[in-house]
Amino acid sequence: MDSTKNTEETAINIPESKSTKGKHVVYTATPHHQAGWKRGVGIFDFILRICALVAALAATTTMGTTDQTLPFFTQFFQFQASYDDLPTFMFFVVANGIASGYLVLSLPFSIVGIVRPHAAGIKLLLLILDTVLVAFTTAAAAAAAAIVYLAHNGNSNTNWLAICQQFTDFCQRVSGAVVASFIAAAIFIFLVVLSAVALRRH
Amino acid sequence: MDSTKNTEETAINIPESKSTKGKHVVYTATPHHQAGWKRGVGIFDFILRICALVAALAATTTMGTTDQTLPFFTQFFQFQASYDDLPTFMFFVVANGIASGYLVLSLPFSIVGIVRPHAAGIKLLLLILDTVLVAFTTAAAAAAAAIVYLAHNGNSNTNWLAICQQFTDFCQRVSGAVVASFIAAAIFIFLVVLSAVALRRH
Repeated sequence: MDSTKNTEETAINIPESKSTKGKHVVYTATPHHQAGWKRGVGIFDFILRICALVAALAATTTMGTTDQTLPFFTQFFQFQASYDDLPTFMFFVVANGIASGYLVLSLPFSIVGIVRPHAAGIKLLLLILDTVLVAFTTAAAAAAAAIVYLAHNGNSNTNWLAICQQFTDFCQRVSGAVVASFIAAAIFIFLVVLSAVALRRH
Repeated sequence: MDSTKNTEETAINIPESKSTKGKHVVYTATPHHQAGWKRGVGIFDFILRICALVAALAATTTMGTTDQTLPFFTQFFQFQASYDDLPTFMFFVVANGIASGYLVLSLPFSIVGIVRPHAAGIKLLLLILDTVLVAFTTAAAAAAAAIVYLAHNGNSNTNWLAICQQFTDFCQRVSGAVVASFIAAAIFIFLVVLSAVALRRH
């Protein structure tokens, strides 16, 4: 009785495991391919975020540490240019600092997007926040660019004189910071497009 | 003969039409609900685009027609302020003009999104272009805002004097244009979020 029961059991068990194995392979073929594509997008997203972080940090620190003192001075005061002389440059430092902080905080979510490629909610959240940050970093970069342009060229109509003839080093560093911030904004736009394409293929 | 055929036909026809009607209702219950939701989003998208168009056009025309001549003049020239005195304001007019043009061109695509709610490709295209326009309008508004701030307050460190004490009307109109452009940028951000949510539910 016992032996027949055993053989029956094994006889039943073997085809069962085979069929489930076969089914498993057939069933998950397409999702696996999709998941691989999504994982690639997730890794690309993570790399882009690190690039944007580098750009935003470079913009913040370059602008924040810019401070030039001219080698000559009058009886009353020494000529000095610093980023906190202009409110626009202070906004630039704050905005790029916030962008850097956001990028650091978004890295774990980006990793979750790699590990669990089908988590659409996280992608949507990152897309919305990235869009806000596009506006934020672009505003900072454009406002600073307008002031830097004025500092380089001046404006005869409003009688604002160019200050870059004196503060050459200051203007160069500030221009570099503006370019870094524009690069960060461009990467944010690319991140939004990437998330949108990934969301569409869901 | 004819009468029986007629009654047979009616007898057959009635249950057939009933069954197809019943099947139709059961089959399309969920998609119809989805399509209705998507159509609502599409109509909201269309209304938002018209609002953004009004804001962008208001920004363009307000800035473009701003031209103030002061009632006093010296021997050599009359004091006059116009938007084309400052390159930033010219960029502002061009950028908001392009945004208005894009919004007009995007309206037909938005209507296609209402008529065919499942056309994901159009939504994705609009989302990507809207994101670029977020950066564009924000850049114009922020750059103009930086200059307007300078015109209002001046800057003692760089020896740039405030010009709004003289050109009161000019400064008021320009400030209004900047606010309109920021509103357009905010609507663009909202349009991107709306498209992303609609794409997610695809």
